[in-house]
Amino acid sequence: MSQNKIMPMSGFPEWLPQQRAVEAHFLDVIRRTFESHGFVGIETRAVEPVERLLGKGGDADKEIYGVSRLAADAEEKDSETALGLHFDLTVPFARYVVENSGKLVFPFRRYQIQKVWRGERPQDGRFREFVQADIDIVDAGELPFHYEVELPLVIADAFAELPIGPFRIQVNNRKIPEGFYLGLGLAPEQVVPVLRVVDKLDKVGPEAVTEMLTEAGLTAEQAAQCLALAEINAPDSSFADRVRALGVEHPVLEEGLQALSTVMDAAAEHAPGLLLADLKVARGLDYYTGTVYETQLVGQESYGSICSGGRYDALASDGKHTYPGVGISIGVSRLLAKLMPTLEASRMSPSVVLVALANEEERPRSMRIAAALRERGIACEVAPSAAKFGKQIKFADRRGIPFVWFPGSPADDGTPAVDQVKDLRSGEQVDADPATWTPPEADLHISVTTR
Amino acid sequence: MSQNKIMPMSGFPEWLPQQRAVEAHFLDVIRRTFESHGFVGIETRAVEPVERLLGKGGDADKEIYGVSRLAADAEEKDSETALGLHFDLTVPFARYVVENSGKLVFPFRRYQIQKVWRGERPQDGRFREFVQADIDIVDAGELPFHYEVELPLVIADAFAELPIGPFRIQVNNRKIPEGFYLGLGLAPEQVVPVLRVVDKLDKVGPEAVTEMLTEAGLTAEQAAQCLALAEINAPDSSFADRVRALGVEHPVLEEGLQALSTVMDAAAEHAPGLLLADLKVARGLDYYTGTVYETQLVGQESYGSICSGGRYDALASDGKHTYPGVGISIGVSRLLAKLMPTLEASRMSPSVVLVALANEEERPRSMRIAAALRERGIACEVAPSAAKFGKQIKFADRRGIPFVWFPGSPADDGTPAVDQVKDLRSGEQVDADPATWTPPEADLHISVTTR
Repeated sequence: MSQNKIMPMSGFPEWLPQQRAVEAHFLDVIRRTFESHGFVGIETRAVEPVERLLGKGGDADKEIYGVSRLAADAEEKDSETALGLHFDLTVPFARYVVENSGKLVFPFRRYQIQKVWRGERPQDGRFREFVQADIDIVDAGELPFHYEVELPLVIADAFAELPIGPFRIQVNNRKIPEGFYLGLGLAPEQVVPVLRVVDKLDKVGPEAVTEMLTEAGLTAEQAAQCLALAEINAPDSSFADRVRALGVEHPVLEEGLQALSTVMDAAAEHAPGLLLADLKVARGLDYYTGTVYETQLVGQESYGSICSGGRYDALASDGKHTYPGVGISIGVSRLLAKLMPTLEASRMSPSVVLVALANEEERPRSMRIAAALRERGIACEVAPSAAKFGKQIKFADRRGIPFVWFPGSPADDGTPAVDQVKDLRSGEQVDADPATWTPPEADLHISVTTR
Repeated sequence: MSQNKIMPMSGFPEWLPQQRAVEAHFLDVIRRTFESHGFVGIETRAVEPVERLLGKGGDADKEIYGVSRLAADAEEKDSETALGLHFDLTVPFARYVVENSGKLVFPFRRYQIQKVWRGERPQDGRFREFVQADIDIVDAGELPFHYEVELPLVIADAFAELPIGPFRIQVNNRKIPEGFYLGLGLAPEQVVPVLRVVDKLDKVGPEAVTEMLTEAGLTAEQAAQCLALAEINAPDSSFADRVRALGVEHPVLEEGLQALSTVMDAAAEHAPGLLLADLKVARGLDYYTGTVYETQLVGQESYGSICSGGRYDALASDGKHTYPGVGISIGVSRLLAKLMPTLEASRMSPSVVLVALANEEERPRSMRIAAALRERGIACEVAPSAAKFGKQIKFADRRGIPFVWFPGSPADDGTPAVDQVKDLRSGEQVDADPATWTPPEADLHISVTTR
């Protein structure tokens, strides 16, 4: 491949400026919502030891990118810890918690918005580099159950402020399928493989799942029961009796049914209709131990989950102390890949005003006007050259800059210069003073709307 | 290394929550300033083809991290383009401009705040992963000179709002040393190596530089002249006559002297005292062709530059079209590594209020109070458990949360419940209604001050 050959790279999406403005708006709303719920922002390094990534769901589920210094010689390569790019933000966060446990205060509420990398084959909504926005709450030793109710409410608050249309947070408890499978007579080591097969239900349909389950050694009866469980869903705690009606019994199952009922009852109190108990939700990663979440855009169910998570009890541990947690992660890139065609930024440039330039000698004056506007929180820039005003107006127009400012000229009789400002949308042009003129509130920042 | 061994990784700094709050404040101010000057935000992918990185100053100056899928077999590895993590944001931006030239509007003002990676040996203020905040302006074909004046003014605006103390933007023009060296009789291929040696002047001192220059084949006289040039600096355009007094002549030198004089004169008009013409500033990267910038913290000169850049004429090119640009980059991690010990965030948690909990049954009520406060832009969280109020107050105090909200109890005579809010700093406790109570403006967000 020639050095000058420049082309997009599959799986590594980049936005054009107007699309990036949409993404920035989403990230700003998400961050503001997380902070309004008292989550503390942190970032972790992009790399972790490969060993650690492999031990926490990497490569089985999430293909890892290795990282190494090109200049390292063989000896250095052998002596250095092999590094990989993180494939999610939960595994690095768990490591951060253990590493800094003496300096953090628990329960620790944190948010983290960063890019992650996975080497999988790129496909619709699946990238090799993408942005996730996570919240997690971890505690030392014990984690109160009520946080499993709280997290989806935070997500609902964020989504309520974004132009994403109706969505549905599906919730399950890992103990339900686990206890159910054990009650069916499956061996403990069959639980995770069966969960992974059932997780494909929305994608491949019941026949294919049945086939995969029987291939995995289940009897026809066991496979049918697994499917029957997966097909139960309800907007309230009525799911529990329907599960019990299947006639499978196990203490772990009962524990899960009670926990999920509590989540559903509490959600009904705070946000009626927000949650759907959906017993097919499994989440592939095997570190989840309790409540698990997925989120679908209504009408786009086959696209899969755009916000997922769950409770994990043993992920963050140094052998002596354990920090159980619950977390949920918005797949920002995934969400935007679906929504971007329907969304529109009000303009490309953050500038509210283009300050025009009568001639190059007047640049200092135009720069002073721009500085005065900025001083008052009005983003602006000075025209690139003293072209004809028509061309300068076109410059603003192409960037969506709504106002053009024309510095006035002092009259021959000594009357001071009066500036004027033109609204490019209405064509209206009025006298204005940079020390007092104020644009409409709606023009101050780029806004995002549905097309 | 055992999988459970957890330790910090040299060169990959991570901040604790209160330090991250300082970093987030810096990034917010920088972004707001860039946008107030009309710069459009973009991000580029973290990886570029290694070939491209190598061709643009990688590895000679900036050691590259290679990236590859651990799961790729040998055949895939051969057929896939070798990838590396970007070592700056200028090279990826130049590629983005060429790749999207048909969809961008020129001149294009963009900012970009992202992490970059270099495999160099970590040392004081030099990391393997760090954050840069860049602004660049590129145009198609020709780039007006006035942008070389404008960029340091934007940086000065950002720094004026940050608690970083006095700073000095040093400016030079690559044509001055280049023309001077040619005028001294050096061969064109000696220019860049000599620039790199002179660039070390602040770090190693004049004797070591003289030695390295003579080792590089310069005569004692030539080395002395190179040093004499490097030692010239002035707060205005008076530097030019001092250079001419050295008696070296070359048309490129004269071009550089005139360009730098124009920058200094224009800066004197807009921001007197901001710039220092400093002829030892060279910038190692060989893509710079005109004005170059570095920035020192006054009193910390030996720490090196915390904000650098320059004009490049040929970096962004597809062979047919060229997009000359000028850019400047704040080394945010580098700046913070130096300043962090002197800075303090007002608190760790974004929460303004902790809503207390009388007993677990009252959680829904405390959650409703929290929702009402959030609705009005007041960040808050509910206590983790219905511990004694003293313990709940301590919970808030350890996180720096300034207010604790106590939900009232309805009296036996039917009088409605009256909530109270306590300011933990003054101890004052007053009646309050979540629909109307407002904290002092200064408490709404985390602030950052010098210790």
